[in-house]
Amino acid sequence: MSEADIGVIGLAVMGENLVLNMANHGFTVAVYNRTTQRVDDFVEGRAKGKTIIGTHNPEELVNQLKRPRRVMLMVQAGAAVDKVISDLLPHLEPGDIVIDGGNSNYGDTIRRTHEMTEKGLLYVGTGVSGGEEGALIGPSIMPGGNRAAWPHVKNIFQSIAAKVDDGAPCCDWVGDDGAGHYVKMVHNGIEYGDMQMIAEAYALMKHALGMEAGQMGEVFAEWNTGELDSYLIEITAEILAKVDEETGRPMVDVILDAAGQKGTGKWTGIDALQLGAPVTTITEAVYSRALSFLKDERVAASAHLSGPDARFDGDPKAFLDDLRQALYAAKICSYAQGYQLLSMAASEHHWQLNYGDIALMWRGGCIIRAQFLSRIKQAFDADPSLANLLLAPYFQQAIASSQGAWRRTVANAVSLGIPVPAFSSALAYYDGYRSAELPANLLQAQRDYFGAHTYERVDRPRGEFFHTNWTGRGGTTASSSYNA
Amino acid sequence: MSEADIGVIGLAVMGENLVLNMANHGFTVAVYNRTTQRVDDFVEGRAKGKTIIGTHNPEELVNQLKRPRRVMLMVQAGAAVDKVISDLLPHLEPGDIVIDGGNSNYGDTIRRTHEMTEKGLLYVGTGVSGGEEGALIGPSIMPGGNRAAWPHVKNIFQSIAAKVDDGAPCCDWVGDDGAGHYVKMVHNGIEYGDMQMIAEAYALMKHALGMEAGQMGEVFAEWNTGELDSYLIEITAEILAKVDEETGRPMVDVILDAAGQKGTGKWTGIDALQLGAPVTTITEAVYSRALSFLKDERVAASAHLSGPDARFDGDPKAFLDDLRQALYAAKICSYAQGYQLLSMAASEHHWQLNYGDIALMWRGGCIIRAQFLSRIKQAFDADPSLANLLLAPYFQQAIASSQGAWRRTVANAVSLGIPVPAFSSALAYYDGYRSAELPANLLQAQRDYFGAHTYERVDRPRGEFFHTNWTGRGGTTASSSYNA
Repeated sequence: MSEADIGVIGLAVMGENLVLNMANHGFTVAVYNRTTQRVDDFVEGRAKGKTIIGTHNPEELVNQLKRPRRVMLMVQAGAAVDKVISDLLPHLEPGDIVIDGGNSNYGDTIRRTHEMTEKGLLYVGTGVSGGEEGALIGPSIMPGGNRAAWPHVKNIFQSIAAKVDDGAPCCDWVGDDGAGHYVKMVHNGIEYGDMQMIAEAYALMKHALGMEAGQMGEVFAEWNTGELDSYLIEITAEILAKVDEETGRPMVDVILDAAGQKGTGKWTGIDALQLGAPVTTITEAVYSRALSFLKDERVAASAHLSGPDARFDGDPKAFLDDLRQALYAAKICSYAQGYQLLSMAASEHHWQLNYGDIALMWRGGCIIRAQFLSRIKQAFDADPSLANLLLAPYFQQAIASSQGAWRRTVANAVSLGIPVPAFSSALAYYDGYRSAELPANLLQAQRDYFGAHTYERVDRPRGEFFHTNWTGRGGTTASSSYNA
Repeated sequence: MSEADIGVIGLAVMGENLVLNMANHGFTVAVYNRTTQRVDDFVEGRAKGKTIIGTHNPEELVNQLKRPRRVMLMVQAGAAVDKVISDLLPHLEPGDIVIDGGNSNYGDTIRRTHEMTEKGLLYVGTGVSGGEEGALIGPSIMPGGNRAAWPHVKNIFQSIAAKVDDGAPCCDWVGDDGAGHYVKMVHNGIEYGDMQMIAEAYALMKHALGMEAGQMGEVFAEWNTGELDSYLIEITAEILAKVDEETGRPMVDVILDAAGQKGTGKWTGIDALQLGAPVTTITEAVYSRALSFLKDERVAASAHLSGPDARFDGDPKAFLDDLRQALYAAKICSYAQGYQLLSMAASEHHWQLNYGDIALMWRGGCIIRAQFLSRIKQAFDADPSLANLLLAPYFQQAIASSQGAWRRTVANAVSLGIPVPAFSSALAYYDGYRSAELPANLLQAQRDYFGAHTYERVDRPRGEFFHTNWTGRGGTTASSSYNA
């Protein structure tokens, strides 16, 4: 008894695979699941012969653990986490460590960290990314919470995490309270953006060039040997090559084009709006999923709403070469937005984030893992106070050389009537960020005209506000209750 | 005593002007403001000689009112509203009516409606739009809340509201609890979109054609005589013609291009994300303000990030004609998105919204007032169950005839390096909505590949989900704890 290194609660696919990963690295793991049949099935099945101990209630689980106890929750984010914590509490003692490895909202994690600290317990909220396979063979792990917990979980986490390059683990301490789950949320948002951009490239190949799934798969496989080398490009090539056993058609052609979502992309957009961080590309990706979901409406609308002929009549090789460069340039901008959000969140929540370390955590194991992240790590290592990823010399140069292709790709898509909201929002972000002058002076004039909202002047310091009586009819009373 | 028809609390610009409007329509108005000096100044100043009674505390205000008492709050949205309500409560009796005319969050209005109903009071949360001038001469008023209050406020509200066409007031009952403030929120979101699209047209004239403020003002003035006829186009023309007295330069050239925002645009985007309504154009408008606000960062970045020469070398007349059509087409899409959001919110909150009436309320008085809204009213009157504004025959045709110009405008902007996020997101929405097939089948394949999220098939009914073991290595366990 009391021999297990860690307890894991929740045996859905991520939980099971994480447990097997721990056992494969020499740790003894006690497991529990609310539906206890699942515990028995697991212990008799995939866990058989491994250092995995099944238990049938929280108390039994806790009693299996070495002190200080480490209990990791792999349950559905939300109320289930609070429920499991309250079931555990009577059996824990000060100094014990509770880890939430689900996709919890970072606000909940901030709250729980402080609640648990008050009870003398150490709380960790950690992002775990890599899908079912990553959990098994080495995920990216992004822990935050009460820093005093880190020495007690570091060995297990870094052992089971993915390793890159010289063996560096894709896991390090992220920051206080909700920082780990925040970084995981932004990871997922970036993942939404990457997936949408790949989908837009696929749509252009399919509709503008009329390519078949197999041909497209070959293009993605080739792209995966260059600067786009990444897990998502790799699996896209594999997916496009896969044939449906039932119909003999390409698998991708029998899958319905109605995408689901479970929250973290949406949260990223909401938080970006709250903080005033222009995370346009991820947000467009979330909206694209929402629009895709309205399949019946779109099919009905397609009979009534006109558009141009989608077929491109130029050189397909040049089109594909442009497309590859467009995808890379847009991807850089999407990451620049994600990092900008992290930076604004760090200010808001008083987190000390190490942006280079975050790139390293994402470099392997997780869904967005890519060669590309080494470039980001290098950029932040070279200048930890870099205001925007776009300003790093490597990325400046990368976009300088690819932007012609990127602009041609978006202009073609717009002319052909093929929607590329992620490509074009990323380009608008690039052009906006590099604009010393944006037309917001006109907005400020309008706001002052109709709402007396005041404006700043180009020839005065920021923070000095002026109001013009535009019509000669308005009063001199300042606005305060009216918001626009 | 007890002679006043209504009491108004809060004498910032909107409150003062609304009170004067009421008095000008024959109503007696008791007023109170926390800083009572403001009451005295008002009564001795703009209110002098009118049926306006100053009071120095909530009790005194309530004592001036006929029964059932009507008290309207024109205070800052948020905690101040709850504070004023709690100050009022001891002096009210069942059947009295409390009206919040600020830009409150609709969620707060839902809560307050129910809290007040429990106390036997009737609560109204109403949108009031039109800025300071509208409040004085006739705003758009969008009341929701407890419907039993409507007969008691209808006469005052419809008397002071803007009138259009045949004298119809721009005010009607919107719906239960938070519906009025929701509709006002979406109004403000649409206003953000309209303002951003006008700003993009201005930026294209300025940078692509090198036009001066005065010339641009003439173009907007001309546009205001056609299908774009609207308050915002009208004031844009006036703003561009205005000269700064201090420097002799065009006013717009001395105003700093850093836009502020106060919440309702952001709320619209957040609610759209929550509901899965693809409100891309309003959201891009909110992000554009956020990006504009980072003025110093942009100025610094402009020295490092390269782009094309922004000057258009074709026919400027053709460019301007395209631009006008682009603005109109993009505006139609932005409104289509706003109405789609209203429809999804109505389902979510069980509101019975009359979309034609909403267009009529926005037809006059408010910031987005425009000829155009008559077309929207006609579209919903002709088909109250219209799934999307784009499907109304008039709008189908309007976009069919303008989309060539719209696509050229966006393609030119993209090639010239001038950011047009609202124009291009609206176009991507149009092309997405009319796409029977979007590339989300690939997303679903990816999600099933890395996270076992399952997918639907094109050859099976919706709601049946399938999982493929893509690699031959994954388990058969379904995903439930992992969210992407």
